Amino acid sequence: YITYLSITALLGPSQPTKQPQKDKNEAVNLKIQKECPKVVNVVDLEELGDKTCYCRCWRSKKFPLCDGSHNAHNEETGDNVGPVVMKRNK
Amino acid sequence: YITYLSITALLGPSQPTKQPQKDKNEAVNLKIQKECPKVVNVVDLEELGDKTCYCRCWRSKKFPLCDGSHNAHNEETGDNVGPVVMKRNK
Ligand code: FES
Ligand code: FES
Repeated sequence: YITYLSITALLGPSQPTKQPQKDKNEAVNLKIQKECPKVVNVVDLEELGDKTCYCRCWRSKKFPLCDGSHNAHNEETGDNVGPVVMKRNK
Repeated sequence: YITYLSITALLGPSQPTKQPQKDKNEAVNLKIQKECPKVVNVVDLEELGDKTCYCRCWRSKKFPLCDGSHNAHNEETGDNVGPVVMKRNK
């Protein structure tokens, strides 16, 4: 029994302490164009319609456009991200 | 010696196996407007100049504008994110 305790103390707890999410700085983009060193999208303003939403969660299947996937991401992770919306006033 | 080995086997390794980054799905936004349920920015196209960059890494001090902080984020984490650039052709 004493042997068990002392060895446990040496090894530390077997499960790591969970870090609070705000202290993490992990990759934001998990899947999109990972072969590309930096994903930058250039948009010609003149070609935009009345309303276009651009993804900032990096989970959209229509990236760089927003397809609403931020909602599932926010629910799963407790995040609060959403798109930037380009609007043309008529 | 045998006791040590068998207890180690029961407890598992003291350090967790590092998960590959692509399998993680964590919050993307660590600091910006965390009191807001969903950060959406609406931009009036008519008010934009010749070139405006919008942050998609959620690390900019000028959010929703890009201030170049994606470069440090990419270096620290191995990520490959960058802004969406709105350009007006003259
Ligand atoms: S799908 Fe990514 S912000 Fe909407
Ligand atoms: S600072 Fe975030 S994309 Fe440039």
